[in-house]
Amino acid sequence: MQALIVSAAPAASSLTADLAAVAGSTLREQGHEVVLLDLALLDWHPAVRPSDYGVEELTAPVGKHAVDAAASGSLAPEVRRHQELLRRADLVVLVFPLWWAGMPAILKGWVDRVFTQGFAYGLRDQQGNPRKYGDGAFAGKKGLVVTTAGDRAEAFGPRGVNGHIDDLLFPINHGIFWYTGIEPLPPLTLLGVDSPVWAGIEDARAQVRKRFENLATDEPLPYRRLLDDYDAERRLLDEHAPGRSDLAIHRRPA
Amino acid sequence: MQALIVSAAPAASSLTADLAAVAGSTLREQGHEVVLLDLALLDWHPAVRPSDYGVEELTAPVGKHAVDAAASGSLAPEVRRHQELLRRADLVVLVFPLWWAGMPAILKGWVDRVFTQGFAYGLRDQQGNPRKYGDGAFAGKKGLVVTTAGDRAEAFGPRGVNGHIDDLLFPINHGIFWYTGIEPLPPLTLLGVDSPVWAGIEDARAQVRKRFENLATDEPLPYRRLLDDYDAERRLLDEHAPGRSDLAIHRRPA
Repeated sequence: MQALIVSAAPAASSLTADLAAVAGSTLREQGHEVVLLDLALLDWHPAVRPSDYGVEELTAPVGKHAVDAAASGSLAPEVRRHQELLRRADLVVLVFPLWWAGMPAILKGWVDRVFTQGFAYGLRDQQGNPRKYGDGAFAGKKGLVVTTAGDRAEAFGPRGVNGHIDDLLFPINHGIFWYTGIEPLPPLTLLGVDSPVWAGIEDARAQVRKRFENLATDEPLPYRRLLDDYDAERRLLDEHAPGRSDLAIHRRPA
Repeated sequence: MQALIVSAAPAASSLTADLAAVAGSTLREQGHEVVLLDLALLDWHPAVRPSDYGVEELTAPVGKHAVDAAASGSLAPEVRRHQELLRRADLVVLVFPLWWAGMPAILKGWVDRVFTQGFAYGLRDQQGNPRKYGDGAFAGKKGLVVTTAGDRAEAFGPRGVNGHIDDLLFPINHGIFWYTGIEPLPPLTLLGVDSPVWAGIEDARAQVRKRFENLATDEPLPYRRLLDDYDAERRLLDEHAPGRSDLAIHRRPA
């Protein structure tokens, strides 16, 4: 298996940098090929800019620019390199500290810039149906979020004040991974790292090691397919999770 | 009133740039003072980097660096300028196209860099309680999300395949605004802008104009206060929305 680990650790000394390295070495020990992208080390610029598309100025929606640039070969070499890494990966791992209930900008901007229209989304099947949510450019790949957060686990639980961590990660697992056809594995969330009850870095490393030794047997989150379970207006069919409107309705029952 | 409008429009020609300008002019016509930050025009770099804190290398958690830099006067002038704009604002408006179910990185990175520890979070009251979720550094301010998305409104409804737009915006309205004490006004969501049913830019401008003419009478989202409605482990008290675990439980019933 080829794994692409994308780390949004702000520095080499960060907890998440440590855990990304543990994830990488664990996969390598199991015979997998690993590319570890440390976005801060790469000095990754997270903003979409005209230079991504070989133009001086954006005069159309960015998706249009991306399609045109791919066709004319003027997509920025940096973007193309990362797209090639993504294309080759069987497993995409995003490792980050949870900042403001989501990814740090450096990682969000990796997605914004690399997941371009025509490459990552905007595709249709032979019947003209959109290939998204369960199908798409990256069908066949798996995805995994590894995140750390300061507050205690209870505060990220189903009724926790921060919102349930599953719901906070929905935009990534469902909105990025599943949207593009990537099957998301259940996230590895290391919570309470700033709380008095944190068990410390050795425990966190052990959790990462254990999880990455056993990825092969992980079942992906059972998100529903757009073409199977939603109506023409893209609403969940009444027969599924009737009367409910929480984000968990988008998973098939266990 | 002083309003700070932060626009994540990728270009001057973008729909969201147009709408941010309409929002600004509408507020000015009503006698309010407006600062409009166009992050792309400012060439805003969204990544947290050591230079933000006047150091060569990050050797501690970024929050610690931020506190130290504020104390020693070495916080980057750019960050301090934006903090001063935020401090003076009575209303903070975030205008952006919804990308990958969230803010474009350039805007997420405005929050990551400007909302520093000690300035935006990490404060305690005289009893030692954390000042967050209904109290905080920015208590007294109001916040407003204005966002556009390509897919039709039904697909962002309570059972829509993209997830309910209210839930996708929870990390901003609750996780950023309410966390820091900012009262979030109900978001203005302009959906379906890439769909055949879109009513066009004049209609979108009219919606923005109407909303910004009437902000004074808007009731904020009735999110619950940490110190009132949650237990010591920061879980919603059993008596509120019993048995439920969707994100809407964090709002008081109408």
